[in-house]
Amino acid sequence: MVTNTQIQTFGTRFQQMRLTRGSLCVGIDPHPELLEAWDLPVTGAGVWDFSMRVIDALGDTCGFFKPQSALYEEYGSSGISALTATLRAIKDVGALSIIDVKRGDIGSTMSAYARAYLGDGPLGADAMTVSPFLGFESLRPAFDMAKNNGRGVFVLTLTSNPESAALQSAIIQDKTVSPEGCTVAAGIMSRVGRENAADGEHAKLGNIGMVIGATVSERLEGLEGLLETSNGPILVPGFGVQGGTSSDISQLFGTSVDRVVVSSSRGILRAGPDQRSLQNSFKNNLEALKLILMKQNSV
Amino acid sequence: MVTNTQIQTFGTRFQQMRLTRGSLCVGIDPHPELLEAWDLPVTGAGVWDFSMRVIDALGDTCGFFKPQSALYEEYGSSGISALTATLRAIKDVGALSIIDVKRGDIGSTMSAYARAYLGDGPLGADAMTVSPFLGFESLRPAFDMAKNNGRGVFVLTLTSNPESAALQSAIIQDKTVSPEGCTVAAGIMSRVGRENAADGEHAKLGNIGMVIGATVSERLEGLEGLLETSNGPILVPGFGVQGGTSSDISQLFGTSVDRVVVSSSRGILRAGPDQRSLQNSFKNNLEALKLILMKQNSV
Repeated sequence: MVTNTQIQTFGTRFQQMRLTRGSLCVGIDPHPELLEAWDLPVTGAGVWDFSMRVIDALGDTCGFFKPQSALYEEYGSSGISALTATLRAIKDVGALSIIDVKRGDIGSTMSAYARAYLGDGPLGADAMTVSPFLGFESLRPAFDMAKNNGRGVFVLTLTSNPESAALQSAIIQDKTVSPEGCTVAAGIMSRVGRENAADGEHAKLGNIGMVIGATVSERLEGLEGLLETSNGPILVPGFGVQGGTSSDISQLFGTSVDRVVVSSSRGILRAGPDQRSLQNSFKNNLEALKLILMKQNSV
Repeated sequence: MVTNTQIQTFGTRFQQMRLTRGSLCVGIDPHPELLEAWDLPVTGAGVWDFSMRVIDALGDTCGFFKPQSALYEEYGSSGISALTATLRAIKDVGALSIIDVKRGDIGSTMSAYARAYLGDGPLGADAMTVSPFLGFESLRPAFDMAKNNGRGVFVLTLTSNPESAALQSAIIQDKTVSPEGCTVAAGIMSRVGRENAADGEHAKLGNIGMVIGATVSERLEGLEGLLETSNGPILVPGFGVQGGTSSDISQLFGTSVDRVVVSSSRGILRAGPDQRSLQNSFKNNLEALKLILMKQNSV
């Protein structure tokens, strides 16, 4: 019987995967225009075929895959069946799955989302993304499920789109939450750090991560200390198509860069459907990223 | 051919339904413990059977049904197939469906969510709930789809759980968004009002609504003006099990109470599976609500 103490934590698996396969995550985003470009039908069968081709091409070299749930959901049950197959295929090639669902709700509903995406059912992944609009503490069922099940959670913290700045930089007034009046994003970073510290394995990477866009630039200024003590995995979308560059990433994350996994979707997928082209695109992006991280580590 | 000008807006359909069938929305929340209490399997087939029983019992009297997506998602494609059937059944009984998915994302991903839940595919509903953590403007694809398709959107604004207060009451610093430094919730209310005004039918109810919990009490104080000018439907969960009472609702919404639909889930569903008991529970809740609204209107 496998007991909880025998389950490797997500933080440990995340860090091992980074060291063996590198810090590049491939976002599996079967957009209708990509399906058409790959000569696939814009249906559940099309997204299934698309996903399998990506995993077939990259499964033995890529450590992290991030399927975007929205692009499966729009086809109803056949799309969700394709998503189930995708998660299973990611597991079969020995990579980690981060399901990008950005769920957030309260109480028994949040528990259901945690069971759905961090459990052993058809949509169970290695980690899920969550949204803290209903309050950080509303996400508790996902944190608990992650800890008990060897899974991870990535909390949206600073996203790459400019229209998110007003909300994420708003100042919290509740003195019990934030004595000094910190921003919403800083409040999340601080809570993530406390969660990971409470897990009791201070030397190891925690299971609660954050989503921080590659293009947030000055919005991270002054938060370096909180980023450092958060001690969780950092998922960085916005690389490539959304405008994030290599130098952004090296500047942004400083000493925390050794916990970063960068996600690219269309930047790699546009090289398909040819398998060799997909592989070359992945390798080129991975090499570029390695150069950044090496440079950063030697500073 | 049906052109956009011939499609009735969601705001119009919402208000007509309120006047004919009343202001009570039944949340279809097939929690595992309810499935067990109703002697149904905790599977996709179980949630399908549960949903059909609720709609069979209440479909000819209830104007609004709100299926909670999380409780279908946990069963993967079979759960989503049950959700598709549920949405279809709601349409067939002439009621309006508000799918509670709380989605929020950026760009092409938000467009996919809009297509999924406000389009004509398997999960298309009359309205969906959305989360503004990535910024109000990130929800644009849903607003556009709603307007073009005769559908509605409910933006999470003030939720009933206490742990949401810190974020939703944080003060926006961006002067271009809020010259006076309003709260996150006030900023959303203000933007909803502008969206509905921009639709050009000032006398009629707009298509962009808000979710405001029944238990937010003093958090609504000072926002009465913004609530009034928002001119959109107001969906009020938190009635019953979560602690909201009739007097809360009558005090909270003041002159805006004529745009309120109150949602109750377990408060009604616990009366099942007996059809007559479900019907009585619905009727009793509806009567209680009518008394509140009458009292309010006479003040």
